[in-house]
Amino acid sequence: MTTSTQTTPVKWEDDALVLLDQTRLPVETIYLRLTTAEEVWGSIRRLEVRGAPAIGMAAAYGLYLGIRGSEAQTYEAFWQELNRQADYLGTSRPTAVNLFWALDRIKARVKKDAALPIAELKAAVLDEALAIQKEDAEVCRTIGEHLLTLLQDGMGVLTHCNPGALATAAYGTATAPFYLAKERGWNLKVYADETRPVLQGARLTAYELQQAGIDVTLICDNMAAMVMSQGKVQAVVVGTDRVAANGDVANKIGTYGVAVLAKAHGIPFYVAAPLSSVDLATPTGADIPIEERPAEEITHGLGKQVAPDDIKVYNPAFDVTPAQYITAIVTETGIFKPEEIAKSKQ
Amino acid sequence: MTTSTQTTPVKWEDDALVLLDQTRLPVETIYLRLTTAEEVWGSIRRLEVRGAPAIGMAAAYGLYLGIRGSEAQTYEAFWQELNRQADYLGTSRPTAVNLFWALDRIKARVKKDAALPIAELKAAVLDEALAIQKEDAEVCRTIGEHLLTLLQDGMGVLTHCNPGALATAAYGTATAPFYLAKERGWNLKVYADETRPVLQGARLTAYELQQAGIDVTLICDNMAAMVMSQGKVQAVVVGTDRVAANGDVANKIGTYGVAVLAKAHGIPFYVAAPLSSVDLATPTGADIPIEERPAEEITHGLGKQVAPDDIKVYNPAFDVTPAQYITAIVTETGIFKPEEIAKSKQ
Repeated sequence: MTTSTQTTPVKWEDDALVLLDQTRLPVETIYLRLTTAEEVWGSIRRLEVRGAPAIGMAAAYGLYLGIRGSEAQTYEAFWQELNRQADYLGTSRPTAVNLFWALDRIKARVKKDAALPIAELKAAVLDEALAIQKEDAEVCRTIGEHLLTLLQDGMGVLTHCNPGALATAAYGTATAPFYLAKERGWNLKVYADETRPVLQGARLTAYELQQAGIDVTLICDNMAAMVMSQGKVQAVVVGTDRVAANGDVANKIGTYGVAVLAKAHGIPFYVAAPLSSVDLATPTGADIPIEERPAEEITHGLGKQVAPDDIKVYNPAFDVTPAQYITAIVTETGIFKPEEIAKSKQ
Repeated sequence: MTTSTQTTPVKWEDDALVLLDQTRLPVETIYLRLTTAEEVWGSIRRLEVRGAPAIGMAAAYGLYLGIRGSEAQTYEAFWQELNRQADYLGTSRPTAVNLFWALDRIKARVKKDAALPIAELKAAVLDEALAIQKEDAEVCRTIGEHLLTLLQDGMGVLTHCNPGALATAAYGTATAPFYLAKERGWNLKVYADETRPVLQGARLTAYELQQAGIDVTLICDNMAAMVMSQGKVQAVVVGTDRVAANGDVANKIGTYGVAVLAKAHGIPFYVAAPLSSVDLATPTGADIPIEERPAEEITHGLGKQVAPDDIKVYNPAFDVTPAQYITAIVTETGIFKPEEIAKSKQ
């Protein structure tokens, strides 16, 4: 179940994949209606769809679009065509792990249903794509329900980057409690860090919360400390790219600073983490490699040059927040102290 | 004395005022040669010169340009012309306190020298303008000398906004030790926060330090915490707009967050404060009004729209860092604990 006011980045509607073109945000809201695998390939390639779960879902629907017209008469022929389409879609964004996970899951379903007629195999592909989307929405909603027990009507809540509905089937992760609070008639006051250098907070989080009628205020990252000192926020909720076994959390650059500031102001700091991001094979945050990204994101990324030519730049894409700064990590299986995150998978 | 590698925003050279056009930074380095009061008025109006001390100096030279051709034969006639030109220059930027301070100082000098011939009064106007610039450079240099005793060769130092040479006669305030260290052959490694929303760090601090051959690395504001946790900086030095009697410090938005982060990482936090910014008539930071600036600085300020239409924005221009986060405040009269800042004026 999603609410009517949520922005849905990926929808299956009237036998087509309907994608919100995220490259046009936040200025224009344009939905693309895609009916072929080639169109889906192009949309993934051009970043019109983004966020790991959303990319996986788009690819899954794309695979159905690629085989629904198949004239294969045998399982073998169908299987080969399915694999050819899956391989093709995989070339749209070869680094997107979730894309391959979704394609593999559909292939496994077809293999399991091998005994069925071709027409029913086609239906199974669509059914599996729909199931992937439904499950992602349920994970997000459940995380949101848990987080909501940690918040109260009237609170101010700060978030960072876009752990939002735009990246998932619905609700987002850290944004899920904001949507659920809205459904209940609560008045949360959300502060969204703009999240330099790529401004996911300004472009995406501010957009999707505003669209949903949630009270959201955009601030620059360097204003979070002042907002905290003024008593404007009573909790911080962020997403994560990876949770290590010791409860350290990697997330978009700037998250660590927000965590330190929250602790200094006595404000609880919560991390929304689908189990798929909890990586017990990574012992600590120090074992998480931090990607450095091009200087141009900082010097030229916003439409014009804002720093001198050839200036030296340090541009880490992520940072690691040590467990000691985290009040709780919230997964679809419950609320965990960071040092007990292993219990989330038991 | 200034070093040859410093960028000098305001110079008197070959009977003309030479201004660095700061609206073209950081992409283009263009010096304007101004020979009339009208040209100086326009440059101040168009923000080609910025920073309180630099604006005051430009206006002082502008006043000389306005009266050097005077054909007045009597003191009374000269005095009236001087006042007319001063009033005119004052309309270029009526909110710039330093501008009026500089003009008033020149008028006081002329009044004092009233007995001299007109030609010598004209010379006195130029002499006073030069004195204003020389004294500002000396204040900055002295602050830098004091700050340098708190730093060591090889250190990493973080700064915020542009407390730089571009705003002053020379050296800047918080940047002064970086220039002095360079003169001594030290290798400081400076990290410059870009300083959203107006990016003074990226556009100005990174520019002027790079021009001077100082090792400077540009980061986004939200990367300061990570840089600290990685052991890359051993000190923070910032400027200030106003120091209250209890040692609280108002400065560009984001300064407070940097101070909290520095304390959490055990890194000393120094404030460079000319005595002109120490305001003992303001009891505490809570008595300093904080200007809120237009939303467009955040949503549209960088060349293109980066947030949705009509998004709610909170854009405080300054914040207040409580004395407890400040290791020392450094003025031209010495190094002071924040709670003892009153001693700086004794």
